[in-house]
Amino acid sequence: MGEELYGIREGEIAIALPETFDASLYFIGRIRTPWTRRQDCPKNGRESDAVCTIEVDARWAQALKGVETCTHLVVLYWMDKARRDLVIQAPRHYNAQRGTFALRSPVRPNPIALSVVKLRKIEGNKLSVTGLDCLDGTPLLDLKPYFASTESAPDAVVGWHKERKG
Amino acid sequence: MGEELYGIREGEIAIALPETFDASLYFIGRIRTPWTRRQDCPKNGRESDAVCTIEVDARWAQALKGVETCTHLVVLYWMDKARRDLVIQAPRHYNAQRGTFALRSPVRPNPIALSVVKLRKIEGNKLSVTGLDCLDGTPLLDLKPYFASTESAPDAVVGWHKERKG
Repeated sequence: MGEELYGIREGEIAIALPETFDASLYFIGRIRTPWTRRQDCPKNGRESDAVCTIEVDARWAQALKGVETCTHLVVLYWMDKARRDLVIQAPRHYNAQRGTFALRSPVRPNPIALSVVKLRKIEGNKLSVTGLDCLDGTPLLDLKPYFASTESAPDAVVGWHKERKG
Repeated sequence: MGEELYGIREGEIAIALPETFDASLYFIGRIRTPWTRRQDCPKNGRESDAVCTIEVDARWAQALKGVETCTHLVVLYWMDKARRDLVIQAPRHYNAQRGTFALRSPVRPNPIALSVVKLRKIEGNKLSVTGLDCLDGTPLLDLKPYFASTESAPDAVVGWHKERKG
């Protein structure tokens, strides 16, 4: 990955990462999407109606029992190409410095992404969904049923985003 | 932890875990809650109006810049006391077998939990929030701004949950 995508820009701040890790993850499948370059990915999942495929490894296929009753799922996946040591970032398209935890950038100490997707179909260990915006081949970490009662907050505001001028 | 909480029940199915991990995590802080035993935790975060505190490690404190403009956050944390090898679970209070990915149980291949919280206050590296239901001392993995445009799905249905008889 080139400097342009994953390097450090003027105004960005990197810290020293801890010397050891604290926990470990299994990749439990892969996400198949039409996008093979970062610049081709939609800006967010709801900008695209592309049907993507989540392929769950055979080892975990039984764990899908009951998922077919869900209209929406939370998908967690691993953004394995991102650096992890930036605390202040200056995304070019926002023209401002912001903290990593105020952004959805893949650059973060633990590059776990989450998307809320609509489930279209399940066939065996393959789920057809809409609402993803990640690169083809992205490692899958988890699938969860989406509960509107606890996860829907239609009045939520991200103040810096609402007021941004570009 | 006792058999009752984290053992295997009749009807549950465990698989052999992969021999190696694929990625690693840093704990970036701790979550402080009033609950020190699993059975005291609320069933979900919106059942309680308890104000909990998210303590971000000093190393990452600068990454909070801009978070104060958000009304809601996505909190990712690590359920470090759960087994990871069950594909079919039989939670006692539901009286049915279901797949791990149809449940929000901490028992899953990657025990990453997510909660949508309301942000009340930030002082230095401490965030006061409502909407958490986890044990005191739970390791923090990530904080993200919650975007209603992509994460709110008020019409989402979890069919098995809606129709359950107990």
